[in-house]
Amino acid sequence: MFETAELGRSVGREEYESEVRTLRLQLLEAQRDLQLAGVPVIVLLGGADGAGKGETVSRVLEWLDTRGLDVHAFGPPTDEERERPRWWRYWMRLPPRGRIGIFFGSWYSEPLVERAFSRLSRARYDRMLSEIAFFEQMLAEDGTLFVKLWIHLSKKGQRRRLRRLEADPATRWKVTKADWKRFRKYDRFIEASEHAIRRTDTSLAPWVLVEATDERYRDLMAGRTLLERFQARLAAAPAGRAAAPAGSPAPPPAMSREASLTILDRVDLERTLPLPAYERRLARGQGRLGRLVRAAFEEKRSTVVVFEGWDASGKGGNIRRITAAIDPRNYRVISVAVPTDEEKARHYLWRFWRHVPRAGYVTVYDRSWYGRVLVERVEGFARPEEWSRSYLEINDFEQQLVSHGVVLAKFWLHIDGTEQLRRFQERETVAWKRHKIGPEDWRNREKWDRYEEAVSDMIARTSTAQAPWTLVAANDKKWARVRVVESLCARLERALGG
Amino acid sequence: MFETAELGRSVGREEYESEVRTLRLQLLEAQRDLQLAGVPVIVLLGGADGAGKGETVSRVLEWLDTRGLDVHAFGPPTDEERERPRWWRYWMRLPPRGRIGIFFGSWYSEPLVERAFSRLSRARYDRMLSEIAFFEQMLAEDGTLFVKLWIHLSKKGQRRRLRRLEADPATRWKVTKADWKRFRKYDRFIEASEHAIRRTDTSLAPWVLVEATDERYRDLMAGRTLLERFQARLAAAPAGRAAAPAGSPAPPPAMSREASLTILDRVDLERTLPLPAYERRLARGQGRLGRLVRAAFEEKRSTVVVFEGWDASGKGGNIRRITAAIDPRNYRVISVAVPTDEEKARHYLWRFWRHVPRAGYVTVYDRSWYGRVLVERVEGFARPEEWSRSYLEINDFEQQLVSHGVVLAKFWLHIDGTEQLRRFQERETVAWKRHKIGPEDWRNREKWDRYEEAVSDMIARTSTAQAPWTLVAANDKKWARVRVVESLCARLERALGG
Repeated sequence: MFETAELGRSVGREEYESEVRTLRLQLLEAQRDLQLAGVPVIVLLGGADGAGKGETVSRVLEWLDTRGLDVHAFGPPTDEERERPRWWRYWMRLPPRGRIGIFFGSWYSEPLVERAFSRLSRARYDRMLSEIAFFEQMLAEDGTLFVKLWIHLSKKGQRRRLRRLEADPATRWKVTKADWKRFRKYDRFIEASEHAIRRTDTSLAPWVLVEATDERYRDLMAGRTLLERFQARLAAAPAGRAAAPAGSPAPPPAMSREASLTILDRVDLERTLPLPAYERRLARGQGRLGRLVRAAFEEKRSTVVVFEGWDASGKGGNIRRITAAIDPRNYRVISVAVPTDEEKARHYLWRFWRHVPRAGYVTVYDRSWYGRVLVERVEGFARPEEWSRSYLEINDFEQQLVSHGVVLAKFWLHIDGTEQLRRFQERETVAWKRHKIGPEDWRNREKWDRYEEAVSDMIARTSTAQAPWTLVAANDKKWARVRVVESLCARLERALGG
Repeated sequence: MFETAELGRSVGREEYESEVRTLRLQLLEAQRDLQLAGVPVIVLLGGADGAGKGETVSRVLEWLDTRGLDVHAFGPPTDEERERPRWWRYWMRLPPRGRIGIFFGSWYSEPLVERAFSRLSRARYDRMLSEIAFFEQMLAEDGTLFVKLWIHLSKKGQRRRLRRLEADPATRWKVTKADWKRFRKYDRFIEASEHAIRRTDTSLAPWVLVEATDERYRDLMAGRTLLERFQARLAAAPAGRAAAPAGSPAPPPAMSREASLTILDRVDLERTLPLPAYERRLARGQGRLGRLVRAAFEEKRSTVVVFEGWDASGKGGNIRRITAAIDPRNYRVISVAVPTDEEKARHYLWRFWRHVPRAGYVTVYDRSWYGRVLVERVEGFARPEEWSRSYLEINDFEQQLVSHGVVLAKFWLHIDGTEQLRRFQERETVAWKRHKIGPEDWRNREKWDRYEEAVSDMIARTSTAQAPWTLVAANDKKWARVRVVESLCARLERALGG
């Protein structure tokens, strides 16, 4: 999940200044419209101490009209607060309709810290997260607009930041022993955070990860996210409340390349493998895979392998390299195309649940439940409220697989547009490949940018510690195939070793 | 909660037969319309073994078109099931659009039994209930109609039923050792059930308690509930799916007095107290109350007292009898009338949260958060989806109070229509009472039946083991006052003793 917020995205000073000029005007306008529409807004800032939550808030405060908002921070509970149920202090700070409450530290802070320091069991932690989800849902159903920003700084970035602050006599006081103590719990904190985000990333109150490596990028993203959520809410005038003033607001301006990097841009598509090395490594990998699958069968561990990727990225060829190594009685390949009548008549996850393998067996999904947040999202087959709530449903489904002991591997085969074009043209000219290309493929290609956005969201929301995505550079088919077989072996080995 | 399903409601043979004739036709029609509209229906039967779930299902099956439904029962998991995640067996049985699945035993059975036999901790039980709520919400959002019937038989009724079956040689085989073993866990089962119902009684998938003392009543109520839920769904044609055929269906016919008893009918309004006994017991009760409130103050236990009741049922007089016994520095009376601007601008629970007392103090609410499911429901100030989801919100709020150690007492002051009329007329003639009556009171009186239904639902859904309602017979003011003071004392004593 957090790998999508460690891309090193940055914004130059000039771009930043020109962006901010427009952004401020738009934010002020949207804030005023929300006020007129009587929408209460809760802005939550999550993330480790030291990732720069405070600085982000200061910047956002410069951009908004501070007469319409309140900033809330929470220390240890006061006497007044301790003497009442835990949620009282948060209830008392809820913004009324038309105002913005910025919660910097919030109902997430205590459970997160307690969990990171191992003072809270997993079951109790889950219960607290359920309470949080319930509380947020209750408010959202009542009309509150949530903007939940998770400010993320990588471990390296955080160490660098603390050292830099210490080195400067003017800021040395900002770094305390407690900061370093918390820093030493970084990994535990990240683990607890991912779990919290996954459990509370709901359709009514979704999280947005904000990369904090570059401060200008961080602040700009926070501002843009606010603006997008404000505008989306104003566009969908809430039932029963005063409608938003008319007039379609301008969308935020496009950002430069450095600022709009996605996780896909970090895939090194130059990787290639010469034929002899390919043949050697593939043969070795397949042998290893065969042995591992047999061992898993004996241990009654089942395996689920998911393939997603661009059209013509080589899913079929990769799947054949895997299945070639496995006893045909032990695997099934499920090709996910148009759902059958029976499948259409049920919840979209049903068609994937039905193929969950028995103990010891392997199911390979050639495309999968992720269609919901890719093709169904981009093509409009699912409504926004449908695909946006499915991240939670998918994470829950995968969590059930993993908790049951299923080995789960998810591959995204990545190619670039040039390579796709080359393969499309090849398919059109080579007789025995012609059946693999049609007008639909050309149409999908035109929506490359929107698919890219969907893929990037998908990875941010569903690449979890228990079920991570493996992004495979697939411009070179040989490289991709070896990489897939070897990754799958590594995953099985870890699972069987444990 | 279950007290509302132990009223001894019954239906005579003739009434039953005439009712069933109409009901069957209406059910078949509604079933067909749901099929045409492509609505998947899940009917869940909850309740202890031996409350007659099986018989209810058999009866319902006679009334529906069995070609459009499937009945699912679950024993211990099969090999196939054990080898996959726990929810797989339920997924595989989900009804497709247009069909009805009757789940008799379901995802509730295992957690309930495990909890009743103390093989499951509270935290893990809560986690399983969260999973259930999540699963049901996911399906409901996807368009599934839920009818959740909880078939309830009192402990006495259940013992009687088992003995009767044993006494008859023809049915003796039906009673096994396991039945008696489970019967001995009746109280634990009821406790676990109440908790489960409370946690999963959502607006999209609410529970309906069905009293099972009289079999004809039980079956008729099950059938009527099905019909009501079917018709409600057909009336609200689901977006994006085929709409229901036109024509407004006839509502189910009214039932006889014996069949439509509510918990309020079980309040013995004949209770009176002569003046000397009243004065003696009131004085003694108030003395005791004063001492208990002081003790609670020293132990830093706070108290919340809620008064609800019919207009002119004597809330004010009762509250004065309580406050007279308490140090004025230690209590506050919150009269809940029209919300202020500040209150209107927030979630409806905010105005009650703000008055939650500090440690040791007492807050008396003269009317309360229950207005949401009483006046706001009946007068249409809250939309159905708003008031129906508030049972869950209210139970959660009260659970937070109780978990924090707050002593919570809830009184419903009950009078009958004749007594109310007498008091209204008295108010109109006695000069110093005239300010207490207005045209609104007369208007509310005309909606007596709808208020009665709302009160009865309120008690069924919010009278929980941790926060039970006390129904007070208030036709005689003296009786009511003594009863309230003494109940409050008993509640405080239990809390302080613990």
